[in-house]
Amino acid sequence: MSVANVLTTAQEQVNQIIEAYKEREIRRVFLVACGGSSALMYPSKYFIDRESTQITAEVYNSNEFIYRNPATLGSDSLVILCSHKGKTPETTEAAKFAKGKGALTVSLMYVETAPLAEESDFIVNYSWAPPGQLDPHPEIANYAVLYRLTMGLLAVKEGNKKYEKLLSSLDNFGQVLKKAKEQSLESAKAYAQAFKNESVIYTMASGVNYGIAYSFAICILMEMQWKHSHAIHAGEFFHGPFEILDKDVPFILLKGLDETRPMEERAHKFLKEHGEKLLILDAKEFDMSGIDEELKGYLAPLLLNFVLRVYAVELAAATGHALETRRYMFKVPY
Amino acid sequence: MSVANVLTTAQEQVNQIIEAYKEREIRRVFLVACGGSSALMYPSKYFIDRESTQITAEVYNSNEFIYRNPATLGSDSLVILCSHKGKTPETTEAAKFAKGKGALTVSLMYVETAPLAEESDFIVNYSWAPPGQLDPHPEIANYAVLYRLTMGLLAVKEGNKKYEKLLSSLDNFGQVLKKAKEQSLESAKAYAQAFKNESVIYTMASGVNYGIAYSFAICILMEMQWKHSHAIHAGEFFHGPFEILDKDVPFILLKGLDETRPMEERAHKFLKEHGEKLLILDAKEFDMSGIDEELKGYLAPLLLNFVLRVYAVELAAATGHALETRRYMFKVPY
Repeated sequence: MSVANVLTTAQEQVNQIIEAYKEREIRRVFLVACGGSSALMYPSKYFIDRESTQITAEVYNSNEFIYRNPATLGSDSLVILCSHKGKTPETTEAAKFAKGKGALTVSLMYVETAPLAEESDFIVNYSWAPPGQLDPHPEIANYAVLYRLTMGLLAVKEGNKKYEKLLSSLDNFGQVLKKAKEQSLESAKAYAQAFKNESVIYTMASGVNYGIAYSFAICILMEMQWKHSHAIHAGEFFHGPFEILDKDVPFILLKGLDETRPMEERAHKFLKEHGEKLLILDAKEFDMSGIDEELKGYLAPLLLNFVLRVYAVELAAATGHALETRRYMFKVPY
Repeated sequence: MSVANVLTTAQEQVNQIIEAYKEREIRRVFLVACGGSSALMYPSKYFIDRESTQITAEVYNSNEFIYRNPATLGSDSLVILCSHKGKTPETTEAAKFAKGKGALTVSLMYVETAPLAEESDFIVNYSWAPPGQLDPHPEIANYAVLYRLTMGLLAVKEGNKKYEKLLSSLDNFGQVLKKAKEQSLESAKAYAQAFKNESVIYTMASGVNYGIAYSFAICILMEMQWKHSHAIHAGEFFHGPFEILDKDVPFILLKGLDETRPMEERAHKFLKEHGEKLLILDAKEFDMSGIDEELKGYLAPLLLNFVLRVYAVELAAATGHALETRRYMFKVPY
């Protein structure tokens, strides 16, 4: 598909799904995927938690979803799934399982079609760019499509006004990312040089940004750089994990613009007092012109995720360990 | 209170709460606490997820709960909180916040009374024994009280039959733990000697046991032994984290008796193929006589948690780093 077609197609796909919402009662949203595709579901759960009085949302790993077999899963459920190439077997199985329970199944994938599509009522083909590169269509990238689907749901079911604001804000998001890249590149290079030999790097965040910390920990640091990591919740930090902090233990802290920011600020204060090897990425320090004031908190994770990918590229360059290198994934049976 | 009184008191407290359930509609359960007290909520969420068609459950860190401010929180919500000494400020604040929204608030604590009690509609004083020691009343220990409160809820609201089976099973649980301790002690000593110098130890589980892995990672390894750690979900393992595995990377895998066991088995197979420094704790290898067949899956986490505490005590003895040693907790401002 041409670039223009990609945009039109994704928008039309979303519009069709929003029409389908109107035809059934929806009380439960299950956000189901694995690894990095699961991490991108967290902001949408945060949105539904905060804004819906009637609809509740859960994030589950695909196999956890199947084996746990939630008793509330049924015809009044919307199950949104994601797999980048649409070939993750657990996620395809989860779509089939959910459809068998009568749920409305919507699957996101980067490719045009794949096994996951065959087991889903609807699909959306999202846009994607390699880590740190500017996507020509960030307004239909995976996180953005997730918000379109969940904010669209609340627009249709509860008259929530965020959906319209999302659409106008997303039109300006490419510019936000472009400026963020320019602003981050030199810091990312310096960070990569300073931290390339670390064997452990923790990430931390709360609220709408926790999934971003999780994604960087498991996909970038563990999977792509073979560094030990863990995404620590900024509120949980003070109830155990903080005892591991010392001058020589590296932490990456995300500071967002959502309502949970005070937790991240508290963690920041403590990190400054007792740690030294810190990277603080604060959404406040980036230019989010063109983004609706009410949407900034929700869109900060998309910004922070992009900036972290700029860091990932520089880290890989400094370590000499390419982001594509794997020892197990797609190489050995599992 | 005398030992007999502790038991009677906790049972009566639970009975009063179950009576209170009858007087209001309950559609949402929020399980709210910090750190280790939060970890013990996970099995009850698993139970509600699997068995309730009408009531949904969430586990939130106390401050995350307050700042996230779920829109479904209201008079049809049951909020269960826990703080060992009833003095965790975030949890007391969360109880006050929930009560202000009209929710029914129930708080667990080991002490007789505390600030948290003053902000709660009901309290339950649970029994507690130091790590690895046999509690004279495991039937009213924290995890068991949580199940009494959640299985009792579904008994009253949906006629669920697990509550009666829980009560009869818990009567025999002390014997299960006693045998488990005898069975584990030598292995725990050997493990502690072999792994005392490791700087990183990962834990892994799924389903009803994930919270146990989380608790051991953040409370025992990070907080009490200052070892790097992370609780990896056994289904997520294959979507990033497994790339960190090597012959020299220690993993503790829990294998439960719940429906998600196939995920733990899959992880076990992979760990055996590509790792060497493994501790596999399999609930199947312990004698659970006296526990109702339908309850074994739900009670396995309580067993595995106890066994892990036996390991914790031996690890502390081998490292010479007492479980009570802290550098920040209750020592510096945070």
